[in-house]
Amino acid sequence: MKTTSRRLDATFAALADPTRRAILARLASGAATVSELTEPFDMTQPAISKHLKVLERAGLISRDRDAQRRPSRLEPRRLAEASAWLDQYREFWEASFARLDTVLEELKPRNTRRAKPARR
Amino acid sequence: MKTTSRRLDATFAALADPTRRAILARLASGAATVSELTEPFDMTQPAISKHLKVLERAGLISRDRDAQRRPSRLEPRRLAEASAWLDQYREFWEASFARLDTVLEELKPRNTRRAKPARR
Repeated sequence: MKTTSRRLDATFAALADPTRRAILARLASGAATVSELTEPFDMTQPAISKHLKVLERAGLISRDRDAQRRPSRLEPRRLAEASAWLDQYREFWEASFARLDTVLEELKPRNTRRAKPARR
Repeated sequence: MKTTSRRLDATFAALADPTRRAILARLASGAATVSELTEPFDMTQPAISKHLKVLERAGLISRDRDAQRRPSRLEPRRLAEASAWLDQYREFWEASFARLDTVLEELKPRNTRRAKPARR
């Protein structure tokens, strides 16, 4: 069984590609076959199949072994695991955004809180 | 300026490595120099520097240009962006975990809600 760290390696590597992220987005609206997945992309079916293999090895999708058309399905557990990893840093980005808000507030000219001056 | 998609490519690729994830975890407790970052790893300083370059190019850390020791600092914005991308799939994993809970509940033998039988 893969360790969490190895699973995260595979998940993040699989997500580091725009076509693979787009395939996941398509599968979020339901299972799809290779040819259905190939259609919206300017890519060959073998190229899409290669991306599907990467996604499958990473556990981000599953494919029906028996059905002839082998539809791909989104498997959200690895995404949940990656999200939980990122969540450790949530307090950092929230603090960083809060600091930015403070700076922006301080930079704001005093009069922006007043009503707009009447047009001439 | 990089598009969101290109930034996500760089972020996820940078996160697909256990040493780089460990460096980010270390920087979460404060800025650190290359030699401070090298210490806990069984790696050479040039190897760590290489990882820092990947993290810096992805915008996950910043490095002080002027200070002689060039400490690295965690930059949480790209992590926030990656987290927001993953969040699109939250409803999927929550539904998937809820289904699993239901299945586990159904598999539970009826008597698990009763008190343990007395030891013989």
